[in-house]
Amino acid sequence: MLSPYYKQFMKIRDVGEQGLLQRLQRFCPAQIVGDDAAVLSMKPGCELVVTTDMLVDGVHFSDRTTSPQDVGWRAAAANLSDLAAMGASPLGITVGLGVTGDTEVSWVEQVYQGMIECLGEYDTPIVGGDVVRSPVVTLSITAFGEVTPNRIIRRSAAKVGDAIVVTGVHGSSRAGLELLLHPELGQNLNESAKKALIKAHQRPKPRLDVLPILWDILDNYQLPITNYQLPIAGMDSSDGLADAIVQICRASGVGGVVTRSHIPLSDSLLNFVSAQQALNWALYGGEDFELVLCLPTEFAQILVNKLVEKAAIVGKITNEQDVHLIDSTGCYQNEILNLSRGFQHFD
Amino acid sequence: MLSPYYKQFMKIRDVGEQGLLQRLQRFCPAQIVGDDAAVLSMKPGCELVVTTDMLVDGVHFSDRTTSPQDVGWRAAAANLSDLAAMGASPLGITVGLGVTGDTEVSWVEQVYQGMIECLGEYDTPIVGGDVVRSPVVTLSITAFGEVTPNRIIRRSAAKVGDAIVVTGVHGSSRAGLELLLHPELGQNLNESAKKALIKAHQRPKPRLDVLPILWDILDNYQLPITNYQLPIAGMDSSDGLADAIVQICRASGVGGVVTRSHIPLSDSLLNFVSAQQALNWALYGGEDFELVLCLPTEFAQILVNKLVEKAAIVGKITNEQDVHLIDSTGCYQNEILNLSRGFQHFD
Repeated sequence: MLSPYYKQFMKIRDVGEQGLLQRLQRFCPAQIVGDDAAVLSMKPGCELVVTTDMLVDGVHFSDRTTSPQDVGWRAAAANLSDLAAMGASPLGITVGLGVTGDTEVSWVEQVYQGMIECLGEYDTPIVGGDVVRSPVVTLSITAFGEVTPNRIIRRSAAKVGDAIVVTGVHGSSRAGLELLLHPELGQNLNESAKKALIKAHQRPKPRLDVLPILWDILDNYQLPITNYQLPIAGMDSSDGLADAIVQICRASGVGGVVTRSHIPLSDSLLNFVSAQQALNWALYGGEDFELVLCLPTEFAQILVNKLVEKAAIVGKITNEQDVHLIDSTGCYQNEILNLSRGFQHFD
Repeated sequence: MLSPYYKQFMKIRDVGEQGLLQRLQRFCPAQIVGDDAAVLSMKPGCELVVTTDMLVDGVHFSDRTTSPQDVGWRAAAANLSDLAAMGASPLGITVGLGVTGDTEVSWVEQVYQGMIECLGEYDTPIVGGDVVRSPVVTLSITAFGEVTPNRIIRRSAAKVGDAIVVTGVHGSSRAGLELLLHPELGQNLNESAKKALIKAHQRPKPRLDVLPILWDILDNYQLPITNYQLPIAGMDSSDGLADAIVQICRASGVGGVVTRSHIPLSDSLLNFVSAQQALNWALYGGEDFELVLCLPTEFAQILVNKLVEKAAIVGKITNEQDVHLIDSTGCYQNEILNLSRGFQHFD
């Protein structure tokens, strides 16, 4: 019999494909396992929403900043956030996993543990997957959701005059990453601020909780739905707040104006770095996984009031070409917001 | 301006993520591109069927035997075959692609070309994906289909007395691989036989065409549907005919008997290798992507008659524990069939 010590460091090559599959099946509902594909029920009249993400060791995650549980949590959260951004409720995810012979079994189990911890908060199962041998650890997640056809949130639906709403603070995830990479920078921060920023990076929450509040506003305040087009545009801020606003404006053929001081930042972030650095991370840091929504101002205000955390109206949609970042205090020059990932290269 | 010669060898690092995405978007329907997730309509009352596969360069494909188009075709075919095995009609696939900076742009485009050639035969679009940097080229495909709830084909539905049907020949894909790896072995084969075997390996066809024939039999010959359980068990033979039959029997808690001489083999295969080798490849070679179905004998016979290619009843379901391979001629000893991939290791 293997000693617990040995078991802890057991490698994939020690258990083989079948051994690993057996261990991973306990993370899936029993009735799902055992056929060529999984079968899922959808609510009548709903449409299917599908999104996929691939994560590669050394490119998208690293043992230096991310425990295996957090790799799993973040991967699941990113996909659920894409569903939330479309207005969809999650049905399940599939997981493609590439592992080397040297990968530790416990590492893989902890990744799955992190995924189901995140998914569990939204009653979402892992419904299938594939485990293969690969020279580099790779995780490929596809998430499915369902949405009522007249409640699909698209990037292209922003209209001139709409308010631009953010559902929470930005920049904290980037600050948390900085603290993980350079712990010495956090020496002036108290423990709870450090913890809050690191948690924002390691355990981001997909904002699926915003959807019932949005639908409630739709039902009770009679937003005008024309041609079955929801009067709400949106996407998530996974690539940064600036990217989200610019993407929505481009897809909608409109421009925008965003007021610096209206962008909500956490107190922890403002205690950690200068206001200028905090704003830069809010705009371009990415991975905050909040929703950026454009909707008529009166309804935007109701939404912001109903969201318990630091949601805010940060600007409005204009008929200009660009998205301008303005400063109501006169301390900073106006800027034009950019796509943060527009020039990512494969080096 | 780049010369056509240079363009042919253009690398991912020369075009970047955005450049590659733009090139790949032309393989997707225009209305799909541009949101956080894709939206797909399903027929009312249908259930969602989901399957996923991951393929890694050097593990699951190799330039030695497989052109990029064929990599794409085979990846799409394998996923559509899993849908067919569940009784589901395809709705779309998502593609996660990991590429190195050194990967040629034309290689990626040819993989996508191969995928849409296969998908096009079944009116199935690529509805989304992700492109990431990776040290090894990786392809992760998730396919979605829809199925009427009382037409879900499960492995666990085989009953004692059922006939075991194969929808076509087996072993040809493995023979084609052998010819690609060792062309000199094919010197006694004529060109059309060589081509047929190589095509079986490079361009396998998912047997979605079998489903309407099955449903027609269900509708016209009144197969008894008890408790909404389809009286048809099945899976595809992607891991070999032996594996499929054993998996179905295990999932159904039954055994089986298969008659050697009833397993259909192609003439090309029998001209290439000995009958014994051909049968071995049929049972354990894999990647033929036929369907293996278990259903009451009278309906099995109707099905076989309706399938134009070499479909056959190869055996029957018994109340024993194992699946026995018997020889009606007395030339061979009886054998017990095994799972061909039961002990794959991660070395």
